[in-house]
Amino acid sequence: MSDPTIRTVELAGAEALRLLGGVSLGRIVFTRQALPTIRPVNHVLVDGDIVIRTHGDAALTRYTGHAGGEGAVVAYEADDIDPATHRGWSVVVTGYARLVTDPRELARYRTLLRPWSTQRMDHAVRIHPDLVTGIRLTEPD
Amino acid sequence: MSDPTIRTVELAGAEALRLLGGVSLGRIVFTRQALPTIRPVNHVLVDGDIVIRTHGDAALTRYTGHAGGEGAVVAYEADDIDPATHRGWSVVVTGYARLVTDPRELARYRTLLRPWSTQRMDHAVRIHPDLVTGIRLTEPD
Repeated sequence: MSDPTIRTVELAGAEALRLLGGVSLGRIVFTRQALPTIRPVNHVLVDGDIVIRTHGDAALTRYTGHAGGEGAVVAYEADDIDPATHRGWSVVVTGYARLVTDPRELARYRTLLRPWSTQRMDHAVRIHPDLVTGIRLTEPD
Repeated sequence: MSDPTIRTVELAGAEALRLLGGVSLGRIVFTRQALPTIRPVNHVLVDGDIVIRTHGDAALTRYTGHAGGEGAVVAYEADDIDPATHRGWSVVVTGYARLVTDPRELARYRTLLRPWSTQRMDHAVRIHPDLVTGIRLTEPD
């Protein structure tokens, strides 16, 4: 039952980050009460870092806000995969995320990021990529 | 810069699981070398559980295979969100995942699941949902 029409190709880090920067939707992964947690968010690339906006009261804000200056480890995933053909790509970034509290930095991100719901989003989280991996699902040779 | 055109509505568990079962693509979240890991996979709902196929050599196989009979905790996410309007839904399931090794059980899943690449996929992972949450991003009242 294997599907011989799709081949998995590993992407270089720069190409993977470029693909991630070309879409606005991704999923952040972190730990909450010792359990893996994932939620969809909007992102933008700023100077090679991933910046997302979040609610002031969200678990993510607490997770990144309680970490020290270095931040808290998260994974961030974005993909664009055709549900019918299964062709596309997926990129996963692992790195330290820190809560942005500086008003000038926040003001800058506010102009770049469009939030997604009527809930107020007055915080931002900035993720510095330490490890970038990606695959492309494509035609066989 | 907030977007007053979108409202977040929490979904009941049954409705959330129904939405997840209506798509074939999701993302499994687990821990690898103490780091959060996420990867896109195909799934199918079988008797209320989520079944995915995976490569024999994948980290996920090791993660679920090394766990005891109860399985290993994972999160599973699926969504369908319009990148332009940001309307849609996202569902997150948390539960125990176990590696399926019984040949008859595997044969049954093989007929239900279409794998996605030329790599051999001879294992399946079955996730029993303990916690199902979901949101719908919709028009405001």
